[in-house]
Amino acid sequence: MKVEKKTLQIVKSIAELRQLLDRNGRNSKTVGFVPTMGFLHEGHLSLVKHAKEQNDIVVMSIFVNPAQFGPGEDFVSYPRDIENDTLKAADAGVDILFLPTAEDMYPFEGGIKIIPGPQANELCGVKRPGHFDGVLKVVLKLFNIVDPDRSYFGMKDAQQLAIIETFVRDFNLRTTIVRVPIVREEDGLAKSSRNVNLTEIERCNAPIIYKALAQGAYHYDQKKEKEEIERLVAEIITSNSSGAIDYVSLLSYPGLTQDIKHSEEVILACAVKFSTTRLIDNIIMSTKDGSYVSNDDEQ
Amino acid sequence: MKVEKKTLQIVKSIAELRQLLDRNGRNSKTVGFVPTMGFLHEGHLSLVKHAKEQNDIVVMSIFVNPAQFGPGEDFVSYPRDIENDTLKAADAGVDILFLPTAEDMYPFEGGIKIIPGPQANELCGVKRPGHFDGVLKVVLKLFNIVDPDRSYFGMKDAQQLAIIETFVRDFNLRTTIVRVPIVREEDGLAKSSRNVNLTEIERCNAPIIYKALAQGAYHYDQKKEKEEIERLVAEIITSNSSGAIDYVSLLSYPGLTQDIKHSEEVILACAVKFSTTRLIDNIIMSTKDGSYVSNDDEQ
Repeated sequence: MKVEKKTLQIVKSIAELRQLLDRNGRNSKTVGFVPTMGFLHEGHLSLVKHAKEQNDIVVMSIFVNPAQFGPGEDFVSYPRDIENDTLKAADAGVDILFLPTAEDMYPFEGGIKIIPGPQANELCGVKRPGHFDGVLKVVLKLFNIVDPDRSYFGMKDAQQLAIIETFVRDFNLRTTIVRVPIVREEDGLAKSSRNVNLTEIERCNAPIIYKALAQGAYHYDQKKEKEEIERLVAEIITSNSSGAIDYVSLLSYPGLTQDIKHSEEVILACAVKFSTTRLIDNIIMSTKDGSYVSNDDEQ
Repeated sequence: MKVEKKTLQIVKSIAELRQLLDRNGRNSKTVGFVPTMGFLHEGHLSLVKHAKEQNDIVVMSIFVNPAQFGPGEDFVSYPRDIENDTLKAADAGVDILFLPTAEDMYPFEGGIKIIPGPQANELCGVKRPGHFDGVLKVVLKLFNIVDPDRSYFGMKDAQQLAIIETFVRDFNLRTTIVRVPIVREEDGLAKSSRNVNLTEIERCNAPIIYKALAQGAYHYDQKKEKEEIERLVAEIITSNSSGAIDYVSLLSYPGLTQDIKHSEEVILACAVKFSTTRLIDNIIMSTKDGSYVSNDDEQ
């Protein structure tokens, strides 16, 4: 017997979405929000699954946010497939799919910027100046438009998550951030919309990233020094693939400082560039028992 | 016959206020919000009056926000009188008086900043670097804590109002900004918490500020040039008082640009320093009919 699915509602204008989710009309129903840039994979669907378990209504947004891409970055080539995404969202049980236009999101330039603090000076922030300004802007806009009770972010974008958690806490934003663990391919490669841009041979080699991080985590557990661990991980990746290291960093989490001794969690993160495709991955570890907290235990 | 007043409820913690104003508990009642730094005068009470006319519940906050005072500014000497303010708020019909502590408002330094655009490079922004960063931070925090349907700002702080209007529009904040005209003493001096810091003779001379602005507005109406008007206003103030001119500027409103030809409104604003006390005032004029829009028509 086939269970009848609730119809997915597609909304394209901010005004329409606000009206639909108006607090007086919600009747105390809770809203879980999954912001994405589309080209959905199992990582996104895992966010939806978590959101469905905890909320009455699940809203997903798909918006490739121009403000978070720098000049020379892959805004134009970022993969898009709205038709397929819509099917996947419906299938996963999303109630409302929000597809705003850039014109509706950025109708004018007011000049006001949200600038992250020292957290943005590490990891991806080094090579992507202004990236997290753009992330914070779109996140605050989307939170204000959707007014979600809970918002779901993947731990793959660990730096983004750390900065958003700080933003929510420091500015009293009216949503609870839920961390969702990384979903991986069977060979360990973290799911990413950008994986489709890898050549066949790059795709074969890319799982070395996670294997190297796991080795690093083992060395961390063995009390090896921070710099030694970072060096080892980089070496494993470069000797087993054509990937060029952007960074390998062991930092406190979510503070993202070099002082890893006084934090409850640490992150071992890296970015690796395969010709045109830049991949990121990480392992977040509890400093108490060394257990991984960023990996999906269902995998 | 004395009409029984509803009791004023005083709330000191963020958590308590959020619980009290929870959307599910509001039952569709509208909330009007009046953020202040206290030492209430008729200007603030005019904000309350407007808020009461348009909302079911009126929330006033009193918080002398350290983040918007620069080093060497009057954070310590800023006048405070919570006891009197409480009586005035109760008398004006405020329902909830929110008195957060600095510890509750700023429990940690996350490093994330909201930076205004070119609007902050004019008027008070020139001499008060970082001032509007602090204003935007506290305003976003308070909006998120109170979740008001409408928020009331006086037109005396015209630059603050202009920047907040831009912030709300650009970041889709969930509140409507209501502009409330300037309330003046009988002799024309704009009501201000800082007026009490004037010496007797300064208080006698201070009304020249508004008289000079009104002269400037007359000259604007007579099509005099921008620079000529600014010069005339400054001259009237300095020849009739001990006040030192910080600025006199005729700008577009709310854009605050030098281009006054292509805006529906213009502002003629000034800041004048009397020994330790810095006063600001302005006239906002419609470019269509020259009428004043920043003066309280009830005065």
